[in-house]
Amino acid sequence: MNNVPFKGVIAYPITPFDDNEQIDIPLFKKQVELLVATGAHGIAPLGSTGVMPYLNDTDKEAITEATMQQVAGRVPTLVGVSNLTTERTVYHAKFAEKAGATAVMIIPMSYWKLTDDEIVKHYDTVASKIAIPIMAYNNPATGGVDMSPALLKRLLEIPNVTMIKESTGDIQRMHYLRKELGEEVAFFNGSNPLALAAFSAGARGWCTAAPNLIPELNLALYAAIQENNLEKARNVFYKQVNLLKFIVAKGLPRSIKAGLDLLGVGGGGFKSPIQPLSQNEIAELDCILSAIENEVYQS
Amino acid sequence: MNNVPFKGVIAYPITPFDDNEQIDIPLFKKQVELLVATGAHGIAPLGSTGVMPYLNDTDKEAITEATMQQVAGRVPTLVGVSNLTTERTVYHAKFAEKAGATAVMIIPMSYWKLTDDEIVKHYDTVASKIAIPIMAYNNPATGGVDMSPALLKRLLEIPNVTMIKESTGDIQRMHYLRKELGEEVAFFNGSNPLALAAFSAGARGWCTAAPNLIPELNLALYAAIQENNLEKARNVFYKQVNLLKFIVAKGLPRSIKAGLDLLGVGGGGFKSPIQPLSQNEIAELDCILSAIENEVYQS
Amino acid sequence: MNNVPFKGVIAYPITPFDDNEQIDIPLFKKQVELLVATGAHGIAPLGSTGVMPYLNDTDKEAITEATMQQVAGRVPTLVGVSNLTTERTVYHAKFAEKAGATAVMIIPMSYWKLTDDEIVKHYDTVASKIAIPIMAYNNPATGGVDMSPALLKRLLEIPNVTMIKESTGDIQRMHYLRKELGEEVAFFNGSNPLALAAFSAGARGWCTAAPNLIPELNLALYAAIQENNLEKARNVFYKQVNLLKFIVAKGLPRSIKAGLDLLGVGGGGFKSPIQPLSQNEIAELDCILSAIENEVYQS
Amino acid sequence: MNNVPFKGVIAYPITPFDDNEQIDIPLFKKQVELLVATGAHGIAPLGSTGVMPYLNDTDKEAITEATMQQVAGRVPTLVGVSNLTTERTVYHAKFAEKAGATAVMIIPMSYWKLTDDEIVKHYDTVASKIAIPIMAYNNPATGGVDMSPALLKRLLEIPNVTMIKESTGDIQRMHYLRKELGEEVAFFNGSNPLALAAFSAGARGWCTAAPNLIPELNLALYAAIQENNLEKARNVFYKQVNLLKFIVAKGLPRSIKAGLDLLGVGGGGFKSPIQPLSQNEIAELDCILSAIENEVYQS
Repeated sequence: MNNVPFKGVIAYPITPFDDNEQIDIPLFKKQVELLVATGAHGIAPLGSTGVMPYLNDTDKEAITEATMQQVAGRVPTLVGVSNLTTERTVYHAKFAEKAGATAVMIIPMSYWKLTDDEIVKHYDTVASKIAIPIMAYNNPATGGVDMSPALLKRLLEIPNVTMIKESTGDIQRMHYLRKELGEEVAFFNGSNPLALAAFSAGARGWCTAAPNLIPELNLALYAAIQENNLEKARNVFYKQVNLLKFIVAKGLPRSIKAGLDLLGVGGGGFKSPIQPLSQNEIAELDCILSAIENEVYQS
Repeated sequence: MNNVPFKGVIAYPITPFDDNEQIDIPLFKKQVELLVATGAHGIAPLGSTGVMPYLNDTDKEAITEATMQQVAGRVPTLVGVSNLTTERTVYHAKFAEKAGATAVMIIPMSYWKLTDDEIVKHYDTVASKIAIPIMAYNNPATGGVDMSPALLKRLLEIPNVTMIKESTGDIQRMHYLRKELGEEVAFFNGSNPLALAAFSAGARGWCTAAPNLIPELNLALYAAIQENNLEKARNVFYKQVNLLKFIVAKGLPRSIKAGLDLLGVGGGGFKSPIQPLSQNEIAELDCILSAIENEVYQS
Repeated sequence: MNNVPFKGVIAYPITPFDDNEQIDIPLFKKQVELLVATGAHGIAPLGSTGVMPYLNDTDKEAITEATMQQVAGRVPTLVGVSNLTTERTVYHAKFAEKAGATAVMIIPMSYWKLTDDEIVKHYDTVASKIAIPIMAYNNPATGGVDMSPALLKRLLEIPNVTMIKESTGDIQRMHYLRKELGEEVAFFNGSNPLALAAFSAGARGWCTAAPNLIPELNLALYAAIQENNLEKARNVFYKQVNLLKFIVAKGLPRSIKAGLDLLGVGGGGFKSPIQPLSQNEIAELDCILSAIENEVYQS
Repeated sequence: MNNVPFKGVIAYPITPFDDNEQIDIPLFKKQVELLVATGAHGIAPLGSTGVMPYLNDTDKEAITEATMQQVAGRVPTLVGVSNLTTERTVYHAKFAEKAGATAVMIIPMSYWKLTDDEIVKHYDTVASKIAIPIMAYNNPATGGVDMSPALLKRLLEIPNVTMIKESTGDIQRMHYLRKELGEEVAFFNGSNPLALAAFSAGARGWCTAAPNLIPELNLALYAAIQENNLEKARNVFYKQVNLLKFIVAKGLPRSIKAGLDLLGVGGGGFKSPIQPLSQNEIAELDCILSAIENEVYQS
C-alpha cells in the first residue's frame, strides 16, 4: 500500500501540564517512551487526547519536537495539525514535516459548519504545501462536521491524502468505506468501543489512547486479528471493553491522566477549564484497572 | 443452554396477499418451504417482515397454523405474538403454544411510551400463561420503546424469558449484554447490516428476512464464524452487505416481495397502505441480486 | 373558512375502564359532559388521550355513539378513526360519519415507515368514501412517521382534507405552514407546552386533554389571544405551563385519570399494559393542581 | 433590573477581510455605523457572526477597539471573549473591560465536553477578574455543550453573571427560565427563527445579525411586542421569517456578507476555509430581500 506508513495500534500520548498550567516536556517524553517501549506501532501527538486545540503555537511546536527526539525513528509518527483556519493548518503541517513527522492528521475543525467544497479546498490547500501523507479524520463529536463517505472519497483523490480515520462510532460507515472505496483503502478506527467490530470489518489500524494504560491487551487484540483468530480476539476484547468505555465516557485526557497516576507513571496536571476526575471516578477507574490486571496476569 | 431452542440463521417469511388484500396461504406455504429447504435454522412467522400488526386475529391464526403444517418439526419455529394490549398478547401466545410453536417472540409495542415496570408486568403476565420460551425483542424503530440493558436484565429473570433479540443497530448494546449478562446469555441480532459485527461480538443467532433471497450467503457467514475464520466471514459478509442495506432501507416486506418476484418464486400482493417498490427501486434490487449471483456462482 | 368546523379549544376525553378492563360508558359520558359544560369549543373522542389504538372495534363504536348522544350537537365533534390499514380506516370513518361526527381525525399510523405516495393514497382513499371534513394529524412520536410540510401541502389538495394538526413540537413547522400555505390554512396545535407559541404564530385552535383538569385556564389563554392581549396570554400561560409539561411527560391517559381522581370526578381504570401513575407522581400532580387553584382562584 | 444594560434588538456585526484575508477595519467601522444609525439597541462584536474563533489575539483586540471608537457610547456594547482555555478568556475579558465594553458575552467553548463543575469554575474565574456584567451564552450547535436550565441557574448565582442568551432553538427552555428563575431573569433569544415565539414567552431581547440587512423589520417586531400588539407582531414577523431562516441555514457570516454586497454596503472578504455563498444561493437571497422590500416599502 503506497504512502500508508501505519498499521496496527497507533498510540496517542496525552499532554501533561505543570502546576502553572505550562506544558511539562520531561514528563511528556517519559510517557512517549513508555508507549514506544511497550510496543505501539505508531505515535500520534497533538490529537484530541493531547488537547491540541487548547495549546498555543509555541506549545504545539515544543510537543512536536519532543516527540521526534524521543521516538527517534523507532516507529512512525502522526502529528495533529488541525486548525480552524486554513492558514494556520498549513503553518503547522509545514512545521511537522520539517521536524520529521512521518505523516499529519487533519480534522476539518468547524465552528461554522463547512460545506463539502470548503472542506475539499481546505485539504487541497494544505496537501499542496507538504510532501508527507495526510490522514483525514472524521469525528463529528469533536470537529463539528460529519464528513459523508462521498466526501471522504473526494478527499482520497488528493494525492497525499492516503488514510482515513473514522470516529463516528458507526460501523456501517466502515462497511461503506471498505465496499465502495475498495479493499485497499486504508481506514483506521478511532472509536475505542468499536475496536473489535472495526478490525472485523477490515480496519487497518486502531487510533487509541488506551496503550497509555493497557498496551498488552490492545496489542493482543490486533495480534489475534492478524492470526485470523476471532475467538481469541473476542476474548481479549471483552477483557478491555470496560476500560475502553470508561475512558471515552469520562474524556480521554482526564481518564488517561488519572490512570497514569494510578499506575505510578504520573499523568501530570491539566489546563483550565479541564479538571481532574472526581475521587469517585478515580476509584471506579482503579477497580477497572485492577480487575484487568487480575484477569490478565493471574490467569 | 437451557430452553434456548435457536442458533444460527432464523429466517423470517413475509405474508403474501391476493388481489383482494386477503392472505394467500398457498403462496405463504411455498415461501416457507423454500426457507426450510435452503437450510434456515429456524422459521419465524408474524414478525415485522410478516406485517403482523396489519393482520386481524383470523389472519394471524391462519398464518400460525400454516407455518406449523409446512415446517412440520423439521426446524424450530418462533411465532410473533406482540400486541398493544396485554390481554391480546396472552391470547395469541396461548394460541401459538397450542398450535405447536417452539417459542414466541414479543416486542413491547408501545403507542404510549411504557414505563419499565409496565413492560416487566406485561412480559410477566404473558410468561405465566404459557410454558414455551419467550424471546424479548428490542426494536425502538418499530416498537416505539427502547429497552435499556438494565431492563433486559430484569426480563431475563422471568423463567421462560430466555432469549433477547436486539435490533437497535448499536453494537455496544451487544457488548454490554455479553459483558454484563454473562457469556451464556442468548442474544440474537436483528439488524441486518450488523450481521458481521454481531457475530464477531458473540451473537448466538441472526434474525433475518434475507434468506428469502440469498440463503447461501447468509448461511455461509454463520458457517465461517463457526469455523473461527474471520477472513472468510468478512469476505462473505461484504458480498451480501449491499443487499442487506437495500432491504432495510426500502422496508423488508416491500423489498423481499420484489426480490421473490425477480427470483421467480412470487412475492404476492400487499395490504394498503403499503404499496410495492417503484420500478426504479425494483431495477436497483435486480442489479444488486445479479451482482451477487455473478460474484458467488461464477467464482 | 370553508369546511373548517373548529376553532379555539378542542378537548380530548380519556377512555375510562372498569375493574375488568372493559370500557365504562357511564363514566365516559360524565367526563364528556364536564368538558362541554365547562366551555370546550369541540370534543374529540378516540384520540391518543382516549387510547384509541388499544380498543377493539366494538369499543370504538360504543365510544363514538356515546359521544354523539352526550354532546348532542352543542359543540362540533372530531372522532379519531386512524388505523394501520386503509381498509379499517375507511370502516371507522364511515361509522363516525353515520353516527353524526362533525369531522374525523386521521394520523398515518405506521409500523413500516410509509412513503409520501402511500400516505397520500391512504388519505385519498378514505376521503373519497366520506363527505365530512378530515383533520390530518402529524405526530411522529406516536404515529412513527413525520409528514413534511410539503406532504401536508399535498394532503390539503384533497377536497375534504381541510385541517392540519401539528404535534411535532417544532414551532418552525407552524411558521412554514402559515407562510407557505397561506394565512387561511387551518392549522391546529397539538403540543401542549407550545400552546402560547402556537397561538402567537397564528394557530386556529388547540387540541388538548388539559380541559379535563383546568378548563378555565385553557379557555382564558384562547380568549386573551382573541383579544390581541399578549401580556394577558403570557400571564395565563405561565400559570398552566407546569401542568401542561407534567401531563405530557407522564403520558396523557395516566395523568388525566389521576387528575380526575384528585378532582373528585373519577378517572376510571386502565387497560394493561398501561398502569396508573405512582404515588409519588400523583402527589406531584396534586401539588401542581393545588398551586394552580391557589393562584387562580384566590387572586 | 440591576446590571442588565441591554434590551430590545442587539445587533451582531460581521468581521470583513481584505484580499489577503486580513481584517478590514475601515469597512468594519462602516458596517457598525450603519447598525447604530438604523437604530440597533446594542452592538455585539466578536460573536459567531463575527467569526471570533477564527481570529488571532491581535485581530480581536483591533475589532474591540474599533467598535468602541465607532459606537462611542451611543448604545451599549457586548464583546465576545470566549476561548477554549480559561486563561485566554480572562485575558480577553480584561482587555474588553479596559477598552470600554459595557459587558462581555461568554460561551463555554468545548472541544472536550465540560462537566457542570468545570463550567461553573470557568465562569467564576473570569467573573472574579472583571467588574462589568457577563452574558452566559448557551448554543450547543457551535459551543459543543448544552447547558441545562439547572446549570444556568447556578451561573446566575455568580454576582456579575446577570444575563442569559439561549440559542438552542427550544422554546420550552425559555418557558423554564422564565418560570423557574422568575419573571425578572434577563433572558435573551439568540435563535432568529424563534424571534416571535421568544418575545411572546417574555424574552428581554433578541441577539441577531439580521439588522445588518433588515433593521426596520427587526425593530418593528420589538416595537409591536412593547405595544402588546400580537397581531402586528405576528404580521411583521411573517414578513421577515424567510430571511431569518435563510441566514441561519446558510451560515450567518456567508449570508450577511452576501446581503451587504447586494445592498451596496459591501460585505468584504472571507477567511479560509470559509468561502462565499454560491451564485445560486446569492440569487435566492436577492429574491428574498427584494420580496421584503416590495412588501414593506410599497405597502
